[in-house]
Amino acid sequence: MAKKKKIIPKFSRSKSKLGKAPGHISYVGSRDKVPSHLQLITYNENDFQQREVPYIKLPIKNELETSMLNVVGISDEDAINSIGIHYNLNNLLLEDVMDTLQRPKVDEYEEHLFGVFKMLYLDTTKQIKIEHVSLILLDKQVLIFQETDDDVFNGVRERIINKYGRIRSRGADYLFFALLDAIVDNYYVALDDVREELESLEEEVYENPTKDTARKIQTLKKEILRIRKWVFPVKEIVNRLLTTEHQLIQEDTKLFLRDTFDHCTEINEDIVLYREMVTSLMEMYMTNMSNKMNEVMKVLTVIASIFIPLTFIAGIYGMNFTNMPELNSPYGYPLVWASFFIIGLGLLIYFKKKGWL
Amino acid sequence: MAKKKKIIPKFSRSKSKLGKAPGHISYVGSRDKVPSHLQLITYNENDFQQREVPYIKLPIKNELETSMLNVVGISDEDAINSIGIHYNLNNLLLEDVMDTLQRPKVDEYEEHLFGVFKMLYLDTTKQIKIEHVSLILLDKQVLIFQETDDDVFNGVRERIINKYGRIRSRGADYLFFALLDAIVDNYYVALDDVREELESLEEEVYENPTKDTARKIQTLKKEILRIRKWVFPVKEIVNRLLTTEHQLIQEDTKLFLRDTFDHCTEINEDIVLYREMVTSLMEMYMTNMSNKMNEVMKVLTVIASIFIPLTFIAGIYGMNFTNMPELNSPYGYPLVWASFFIIGLGLLIYFKKKGWL
Amino acid sequence: MAKKKKIIPKFSRSKSKLGKAPGHISYVGSRDKVPSHLQLITYNENDFQQREVPYIKLPIKNELETSMLNVVGISDEDAINSIGIHYNLNNLLLEDVMDTLQRPKVDEYEEHLFGVFKMLYLDTTKQIKIEHVSLILLDKQVLIFQETDDDVFNGVRERIINKYGRIRSRGADYLFFALLDAIVDNYYVALDDVREELESLEEEVYENPTKDTARKIQTLKKEILRIRKWVFPVKEIVNRLLTTEHQLIQEDTKLFLRDTFDHCTEINEDIVLYREMVTSLMEMYMTNMSNKMNEVMKVLTVIASIFIPLTFIAGIYGMNFTNMPELNSPYGYPLVWASFFIIGLGLLIYFKKKGWL
Amino acid sequence: MAKKKKIIPKFSRSKSKLGKAPGHISYVGSRDKVPSHLQLITYNENDFQQREVPYIKLPIKNELETSMLNVVGISDEDAINSIGIHYNLNNLLLEDVMDTLQRPKVDEYEEHLFGVFKMLYLDTTKQIKIEHVSLILLDKQVLIFQETDDDVFNGVRERIINKYGRIRSRGADYLFFALLDAIVDNYYVALDDVREELESLEEEVYENPTKDTARKIQTLKKEILRIRKWVFPVKEIVNRLLTTEHQLIQEDTKLFLRDTFDHCTEINEDIVLYREMVTSLMEMYMTNMSNKMNEVMKVLTVIASIFIPLTFIAGIYGMNFTNMPELNSPYGYPLVWASFFIIGLGLLIYFKKKGWL
Amino acid sequence: MAKKKKIIPKFSRSKSKLGKAPGHISYVGSRDKVPSHLQLITYNENDFQQREVPYIKLPIKNELETSMLNVVGISDEDAINSIGIHYNLNNLLLEDVMDTLQRPKVDEYEEHLFGVFKMLYLDTTKQIKIEHVSLILLDKQVLIFQETDDDVFNGVRERIINKYGRIRSRGADYLFFALLDAIVDNYYVALDDVREELESLEEEVYENPTKDTARKIQTLKKEILRIRKWVFPVKEIVNRLLTTEHQLIQEDTKLFLRDTFDHCTEINEDIVLYREMVTSLMEMYMTNMSNKMNEVMKVLTVIASIFIPLTFIAGIYGMNFTNMPELNSPYGYPLVWASFFIIGLGLLIYFKKKGWL
Repeated sequence: MAKKKKIIPKFSRSKSKLGKAPGHISYVGSRDKVPSHLQLITYNENDFQQREVPYIKLPIKNELETSMLNVVGISDEDAINSIGIHYNLNNLLLEDVMDTLQRPKVDEYEEHLFGVFKMLYLDTTKQIKIEHVSLILLDKQVLIFQETDDDVFNGVRERIINKYGRIRSRGADYLFFALLDAIVDNYYVALDDVREELESLEEEVYENPTKDTARKIQTLKKEILRIRKWVFPVKEIVNRLLTTEHQLIQEDTKLFLRDTFDHCTEINEDIVLYREMVTSLMEMYMTNMSNKMNEVMKVLTVIASIFIPLTFIAGIYGMNFTNMPELNSPYGYPLVWASFFIIGLGLLIYFKKKGWL
Repeated sequence: MAKKKKIIPKFSRSKSKLGKAPGHISYVGSRDKVPSHLQLITYNENDFQQREVPYIKLPIKNELETSMLNVVGISDEDAINSIGIHYNLNNLLLEDVMDTLQRPKVDEYEEHLFGVFKMLYLDTTKQIKIEHVSLILLDKQVLIFQETDDDVFNGVRERIINKYGRIRSRGADYLFFALLDAIVDNYYVALDDVREELESLEEEVYENPTKDTARKIQTLKKEILRIRKWVFPVKEIVNRLLTTEHQLIQEDTKLFLRDTFDHCTEINEDIVLYREMVTSLMEMYMTNMSNKMNEVMKVLTVIASIFIPLTFIAGIYGMNFTNMPELNSPYGYPLVWASFFIIGLGLLIYFKKKGWL
Repeated sequence: MAKKKKIIPKFSRSKSKLGKAPGHISYVGSRDKVPSHLQLITYNENDFQQREVPYIKLPIKNELETSMLNVVGISDEDAINSIGIHYNLNNLLLEDVMDTLQRPKVDEYEEHLFGVFKMLYLDTTKQIKIEHVSLILLDKQVLIFQETDDDVFNGVRERIINKYGRIRSRGADYLFFALLDAIVDNYYVALDDVREELESLEEEVYENPTKDTARKIQTLKKEILRIRKWVFPVKEIVNRLLTTEHQLIQEDTKLFLRDTFDHCTEINEDIVLYREMVTSLMEMYMTNMSNKMNEVMKVLTVIASIFIPLTFIAGIYGMNFTNMPELNSPYGYPLVWASFFIIGLGLLIYFKKKGWL
Repeated sequence: MAKKKKIIPKFSRSKSKLGKAPGHISYVGSRDKVPSHLQLITYNENDFQQREVPYIKLPIKNELETSMLNVVGISDEDAINSIGIHYNLNNLLLEDVMDTLQRPKVDEYEEHLFGVFKMLYLDTTKQIKIEHVSLILLDKQVLIFQETDDDVFNGVRERIINKYGRIRSRGADYLFFALLDAIVDNYYVALDDVREELESLEEEVYENPTKDTARKIQTLKKEILRIRKWVFPVKEIVNRLLTTEHQLIQEDTKLFLRDTFDHCTEINEDIVLYREMVTSLMEMYMTNMSNKMNEVMKVLTVIASIFIPLTFIAGIYGMNFTNMPELNSPYGYPLVWASFFIIGLGLLIYFKKKGWL
Repeated sequence: MAKKKKIIPKFSRSKSKLGKAPGHISYVGSRDKVPSHLQLITYNENDFQQREVPYIKLPIKNELETSMLNVVGISDEDAINSIGIHYNLNNLLLEDVMDTLQRPKVDEYEEHLFGVFKMLYLDTTKQIKIEHVSLILLDKQVLIFQETDDDVFNGVRERIINKYGRIRSRGADYLFFALLDAIVDNYYVALDDVREELESLEEEVYENPTKDTARKIQTLKKEILRIRKWVFPVKEIVNRLLTTEHQLIQEDTKLFLRDTFDHCTEINEDIVLYREMVTSLMEMYMTNMSNKMNEVMKVLTVIASIFIPLTFIAGIYGMNFTNMPELNSPYGYPLVWASFFIIGLGLLIYFKKKGWL
């Protein structure tokens, strides 16, 4: 059985939000509510610190140059609200932070830059997981809101810890872009998974298509549509960041985003390509199925077409007419056998020539 | 039987309007004409009132800061006309108010802002109802024209009554946007209904497709097309409101519309997605049907291919030739049975190998 | 038999125009040449006159404020040419007036505004007729060139005659727009006809599809394509008129065109929608046909699969071996009948379980 | 057999051009190389001359006002090169003149205007021929480069010779546009041919579809794609000419190009339309084929379903059991016949009711 | 068996790059790592030199006017890094040089212009090879980074060596464009290969379609998609170069790029066209297969429909009723034969009339 993937989660925004004012803060998602906890990394060119902080101690003083604050768990309305107050964040913004159905977007506020994205990564069972993540760029700080401890930012953390590359010597805007770049890089992982599934299904369609194959193809198509839904808008967002004149972003930092933009372009092209290939695959499946049917019909036709006439001949000499001279002729029976062979052979040759054998 | 939904109402604009001048006020719709009645809510930050008013008492003096006037029933030409005169509304505007076939749009007049929309909501039988609604933003007032008492604005009314959120402290432009936001939020309800139908049909296609399934899929497709017709244009309208410089709309109120715009984007994307999924479903249905046909053909082929040759052999020894030595041999009959088994088994093995059993 | 509709007329422009200079005046159309005749309506706010005029008496002095001159018959080259000279019209313009294959368009000349459109209306046999019409806005006059006496302007004439609405008190530019509005309003009539045909075909596809149904669907599709060809460009034309700064058009008259533009938008959307629905219908037809085939195959399979094995058994005991002990057993014959019933019943139950009965 | 048309010529640019510098002058085409010859027409308002000129006598002095020089044969590199030198033409331009695979385009040079187009016309066997033609507008001269003596400019030549229309009194820019207009007008001829083929194929699909019909439809589709390839870009080119500010083109001459632009718009729309219609035709063909298959299956089903059960009954009474009381009953044989009739008739009525007869 | 072509290479960027900082230099590709080597050509109008240089001797002094440096092998991180330092190249640029999955693009840096492209050429087995190539335009130098010694630049080298055309007298910007032009010209070779495959498959579909044909068509479709992926973006890149105002590119050199742009337009149109034709081919294949199935069914129907009724008649007279007067009639047997002929012939004529024979 093909695994079932829901393109749309079971919970629905309409139930959570209907009749509420815009800016109403409440969690929209499929998880149980858990308290949020906060992980802080602060660093400058020479030093860095990493620790858990309770949210009631906010705002954190920036002992070092730049800090990155992971808020893990977005269903805790009190925590989110209190963080919002500490950092002076708009309620509309907080609403999006807690709404796991929110489409990727970037909003520019005077004091901060707010982005909503989806992280895609393979979980331990090699299924693609899609997680809601919000990034907020403040002066010398980046806030990250995420649902669970799993994220795609370990590479960034290691670069900070190990002082690899430019990250320690550059500001919060570079960090913001590095996180975004990490999110986009992980889209390749999901696409590679899709590509592998595509290739294995292609093999299956050509070598051993079954009734279940069609369902698997449709499931993959829905998976691609699901990825497209969350990944497609990111290109436009990165493009907007490339041209923004927000005060928190320095002109020369944008250079590093050009690369991310290239990747988005490529990812979107690949998604379109995979979509086309899945359609081709379904077409191919149907062609193969129809070819198989053809083969079934040919076997039936060949066998029926040969034996039905022969049975008729046998039927003739099974008739009980008193006056059938052939029956008493000594050549009668051998001649009938001869006619069986001649007719049978003739039809076989005919079908052979038709290419049905 | 799949329920029938008409994508286009039975009455037609061509019959009602042909040969009439633009601005000719007459009801275009499917309901019987009934007198309009008016419901008024007025409020300021501290106080609010709610009452029925007769339309002959118009215009209502704004005792409190802001007022919202629901005109229920749009088939009453006298009432609409008289309201139009009281509020100094253009005849072209009133024509659109009474034309339930009017496409969603926004028109900016110097003294007021006029919007036509469709409310979508589930009625008591869980069918999606589509209702014509017009919103007019005047100075400190919002007029709402709707066909029946049912609407999607109860959430807004409750926020006014219970003083929840910002609504009581902000002006008529905020109220106008809150109403529009309520309309858009309800589109999710319709889409959720579509999604559920889609999932239940998907189940049906995979588990137990019947002849009726195809019709149900087509019906759902038409439902999606119907929703698309009325919902798609709203995104463009909201976008225009976001950039309008109409004197009645304050710049900072527009902020709250950004959220509505995001929702419109998402809704339109979902409609496109559901459209694609319905097409996939139809494709899958046809593939399943063709697979079933395949199975039917295989059964026929297996049975016919095994028994037709055997019948031929039986036919041979049913012939009445006098000179058939096999007939008198004591091994004749057992050998024929042996041949039956060998041929039958051979063909069974062949079909097994082909994967037809 | 489905009625045949030619999407392209039998006569072709290539035969009429090849090798001619631009501006060469000659009739391109399917009718016999007949002399043109002219009908004049002049009016001001208080008065109006209506009469036939011979074209040699042109130009007509404007006794009253505004006049509308219908030129009926556009195959009369002498008349058209002479009218062109009287009103100082460009040869390129006259060429378009007489070319019934001309695509809808608007050309702005310094002294006049020229529009080509198609009138769509139902003739007495309920067929959609498409007629070429040209409108020329001059100072205080509108010229209308049409092929026959039938047109869609009677509503406008009645409004002039009965002084209904604004038309008598406004100038020639309002008249021009009113005529255009009448043309567009009649497109709804054609679309309603398409919609009804669509619904009746849908009924036919579901209830009683025949071989002819496919042809009818294709015919309707071609009808929609034909309407699209002539109706689609009008929206763009109306949009251009909305933004034109031609001296003959007053700014506040344009307001009335906004309504026409809305209608064009809706009409174009509906054409696209009907196109999609016709495609769905064809798909549904094919699905139904394939389902019917399925049913045919099932009947064949059930009957053949039951009786072929039984016939084989009967064949066995029709063999003439001398040594067949069953034949002489008194239980032989009843047991064979028993086996017939058991096998037949077993297969029936099997097919029942498969859902083929 | 359907006639074969190659959408792409057998010779390929890759073989002729690979590794050559841009501006390398060499013939790319399918014809044998022949020497070019030149035909000159010069004229002013009162006079005109027409003669052959050897290319070594170039440049020709303009005895009269305007001249049109046809260079026939574009495979003669010496001649083309020498003409290029005489008229001071760029090598990149000459390369395009000799490249019959060059896409239609217009290039503006300071001293001249260069256009590449394809002439489409029916040859004597009613096949659509596509010929490469280049037009160069110089001061008071138009150069035409063409492959053979056949072209679509005879109408223009006649208008010059017979002094018909404006052509003699206007300059080289008008001539350039007249030639372009002649090319575009001839596209209608090709499209009319496509339309007729479309209608005849439609007849064939409905009345008498054969295996060859599918191939004919595919061939027509490729013909439409071939025409589209060469004709589609012309609209954009004409649009650019309408807005060019090239010194050789007078503003009021552009008026005459508006008509050509309208034609291009219509032609492109028709090509899209024909493309859609060919797709519909293929769909219809497949539907008809599937309906025919249906009919075949019904005949098989009806005959097999009636006679297989009857044969079984006959088989029963062909069995040789000693103890079959029916065999000796005087009513046995008539009763069996009765059962044949009843069963046969019953099935016939059943199939009749199913609509299979 | 159709040859398998992977649209996506086996190695994946996600494995190579995940968690790395932008600008991290590492080879992304399918080859084993080999040391790079460098080939230098320097030239001015009168002279030229060609030699291998070790990369440790960089930067090379420009003895002559212009130089072209081929870096062969891009998996050697030390070499690439050291070249980058010598020429002052950005790490982000070097990252793209070594990433064979990088999409075609152009980046403008202040001191140099950087382009990434794919070379397409046929290898010795006539397979299309796709190779990553980077071009960097510096002051008076062009750097080329390529994977192997095979490239598409031999034509350019010959023009330099043999002093053919303008190349020796013009600067590095002309060289840069000449190399780009050579890359684009070679796309025609790949497209010609696709076209030939398309024509041979078309032949196969019409003349001798097998089960393998469908797979070959799908393989060609994927090949076209693969080419499209790498070739499509080039047009946009060339367009950007046409409008760039980079200091290293002289205005009059751009003229030569116009030709390249035309070619890109044509190539992209052809790719779209081939894509459409492959879809048509698949459609045609399925139609042919369905026609073949039709034929199989007709043979079965004709044979079964003729012989099943005849066998029934023979069965009747094989019954053992004692009271069958026909059996003893001397005309019985001949009359049965007559009925065989009449019924058989009648059915044959019927099928002939149906067109099934």
